[in-house]
Amino acid sequence: MAFTPLHDRVLVRRIESEEKTKGGLIIPDTAKEKPAEGEVIAVGAGARDEDGDRIPMDVKAGDRVLFGKWSGTEIVLNGEELLIMKESDILGILTD
Amino acid sequence: MAFTPLHDRVLVRRIESEEKTKGGLIIPDTAKEKPAEGEVIAVGAGARDEDGDRIPMDVKAGDRVLFGKWSGTEIVLNGEELLIMKESDILGILTD
Amino acid sequence: MAFTPLHDRVLVRRIESEEKTKGGLIIPDTAKEKPAEGEVIAVGAGARDEDGDRIPMDVKAGDRVLFGKWSGTEIVLNGEELLIMKESDILGILTD
Amino acid sequence: MAFTPLHDRVLVRRIESEEKTKGGLIIPDTAKEKPAEGEVIAVGAGARDEDGDRIPMDVKAGDRVLFGKWSGTEIVLNGEELLIMKESDILGILTD
Amino acid sequence: MAFTPLHDRVLVRRIESEEKTKGGLIIPDTAKEKPAEGEVIAVGAGARDEDGDRIPMDVKAGDRVLFGKWSGTEIVLNGEELLIMKESDILGILTD
Amino acid sequence: MAFTPLHDRVLVRRIESEEKTKGGLIIPDTAKEKPAEGEVIAVGAGARDEDGDRIPMDVKAGDRVLFGKWSGTEIVLNGEELLIMKESDILGILTD
Amino acid sequence: MAFTPLHDRVLVRRIESEEKTKGGLIIPDTAKEKPAEGEVIAVGAGARDEDGDRIPMDVKAGDRVLFGKWSGTEIVLNGEELLIMKESDILGILTD
Repeated sequence: MAFTPLHDRVLVRRIESEEKTKGGLIIPDTAKEKPAEGEVIAVGAGARDEDGDRIPMDVKAGDRVLFGKWSGTEIVLNGEELLIMKESDILGILTD
Repeated sequence: MAFTPLHDRVLVRRIESEEKTKGGLIIPDTAKEKPAEGEVIAVGAGARDEDGDRIPMDVKAGDRVLFGKWSGTEIVLNGEELLIMKESDILGILTD
Repeated sequence: MAFTPLHDRVLVRRIESEEKTKGGLIIPDTAKEKPAEGEVIAVGAGARDEDGDRIPMDVKAGDRVLFGKWSGTEIVLNGEELLIMKESDILGILTD
Repeated sequence: MAFTPLHDRVLVRRIESEEKTKGGLIIPDTAKEKPAEGEVIAVGAGARDEDGDRIPMDVKAGDRVLFGKWSGTEIVLNGEELLIMKESDILGILTD
Repeated sequence: MAFTPLHDRVLVRRIESEEKTKGGLIIPDTAKEKPAEGEVIAVGAGARDEDGDRIPMDVKAGDRVLFGKWSGTEIVLNGEELLIMKESDILGILTD
Repeated sequence: MAFTPLHDRVLVRRIESEEKTKGGLIIPDTAKEKPAEGEVIAVGAGARDEDGDRIPMDVKAGDRVLFGKWSGTEIVLNGEELLIMKESDILGILTD
Repeated sequence: MAFTPLHDRVLVRRIESEEKTKGGLIIPDTAKEKPAEGEVIAVGAGARDEDGDRIPMDVKAGDRVLFGKWSGTEIVLNGEELLIMKESDILGILTD
C-alpha cells in the first residue's frame, strides 16, 4: 500500500541517532529539543499560492532531512512506523 | 438524500481499523493520536483564492484518505454516520 | 418586512429535527454537537476579495443546508424566529 | 455640526424596540443577545483593498439596519446620542 | 521644533470637552468610554499597500476629529502636550 | 566596526532627555510611557512587499526620531550602547 | 557532511563574546537579553512570496551577524555545535 501526502506534507522515515555515529550528525537522545533526522519517503504536490497556483516542494523522496523533534503525526504503513509532517517543519537537507 | 459539502469541505465515511489488518494500514485504536482512515463520499466545489477564483480540490469521491483523529463534524445521512471535514484536515491518500 | 443580509451573510429558517424522520437526515437533539438543519431564506451579495470584487455566494434562497449547531444570531422577523449566519458557517447543501 | 465617519465606519441612530411592534421586527430587550435595530445617518468613504483602492460601502444613509447588540461606540452629536460602528458590525438591511 | 509622524500616524491636539458646549459635540468626561475630540496638527505620508505603494491619508492638518478615548501616545512638543496615534484610531471628522 | 541592520531595522543612538530642555521636546523621565528620542545611525535596505520587492525606508541616517519607550534591543558597538529596532517602532521625525 | 537549510533558514556558528574584546562588539554575557554574535555557515534558497517566487536572502555564508539571544535550534554537525535559525531572527551584519 502506498501513501501520497496531501498539499505540502511530507512522509518521513525516522533515522535513529545510533546509526549516525559513523561520522556525521550526532543528535544524542538526551539532548534537549535537538532536531531529529529522517529520510523523505514521499512528498505532496505542494501547497498553493494566493492565486491558487502550485508552490513546488523543496524536498524530494530520498532526501535526508532534519526536523523539529515533536513535528509530525505518526502512522503505520505496511507494518512500518512513519511520520507525516508539513514541509515547513523541515529545517534542512543533509548531504555527504 | 444527497449532501454536497460547501467550499473546501469533504464528506467522509470512516473505515474502522479492524478492516485494515488484511495487510495494509494498521492504526490500533489504543495508539495515541494516530490518524483515522476513511473513504471520500463527496467533495465541495473548492475554496476561493484571494482573487475569488476556485481552488481545485486535491481529493475526490472514492479516495481512501488519512485524517486527523479529531477532525470533522459527525452527521447521520440516510441512517449512516458520516463526517464532514475541511480538505486541510486530510493528511494524504492511500492507494494499493 | 424583508431582510437582506449584508456581505456573505445568510438568513436561515431552522428545520426542527422531528420533521426529518420521514426518511432522510436524522439529527437527534440528544446527539453531541450534531449540526442543525435549515432552509435558506435570503443571502447577501457576497463578500469581497482582496481586489474589492464580489465573491459569488455558493448557497441561494430555498437551499436546505446543514450548519454548526451554535452558528448564527437569532432575530424575529414578522413574528418568526430566524437565524443570521455567515456562509462559512454552512457545512453543505442537502438535496433529495 | 456634521460628522463624517472615517474609512468603513457608519454613523447609526438606534431605533428602540417598542416602535417596532406595529407589525415588523420584534426584538424584545429581554431576549439574549438579540441584535439591535437602527437607521444609518452617515457612512464613510469605504475601506481600501490591498492595492489601496476604495471598497464601496454596502449601506447608505437612510437604510434601516440590524447590528450586533454590543457593536459601536457611543457619541452625542447636536445633543443626540448616536453610534459609530464598522460596516462589518451590520448584519443586514430591513425593507418594507 | 516640528514633528512629522511616520507612515499612517497622526499628530493630534486634544480639544477639552468644555469648549464644545457652545452647541456641538458634548462628550461629558463622566461618560463611559466616550470618544475624545481633537484637532489634527500633522499627518504622515501614509502606510503602504501590499505592493509597497503609498495609501493616501483620509485626514489632514486642521481636521477636527473624534478618536478612541485611550488612543495614542503622549508627547510634549515645544512645551505643549500632544498625541501621536494611528489613522485607524480616528472614528471620523467633524464639520460645522 | 560598522553594523548594517537587516530588512526594515534601524540602528539608533538614544538622546537623553536633559539635552532637550534647551527649547524643544521635553520628555521628563518620570512621565509614564512617554516616547524616547534618538538619532538614526544606520538603516536596513528595507522589508519586502508581498511580491518580494523592496519597500523603501522612511527614515535615514541622521534623522532625529521619537520611538516607543520599550522599543528595540540594546547592543554595544565600539564601546557605545545603541539600540536596534524596527522602523515600525518609530513614531515620527523631529526637525528644527 | 554538509547541511543546506530549507527556505529562509540560516546555519550559524556562534562566536563567543570573549573573542570580541579585541576592539569591536562587546556583548558581556551578564547583559540582559543582549543579542548574540555568530558567523553564517550556509543559507537556504529563500522563502517564497505570495506568487510562489523566491525571495532572495539578505545574508550569505561568511557574514558576521547579530541575532536574538534565544533564536534558533541547536544541532551538532561533524562534531561541531551549530544553530539553525530563520533569517528574520538576524538583526544585522557586522563589518570591519
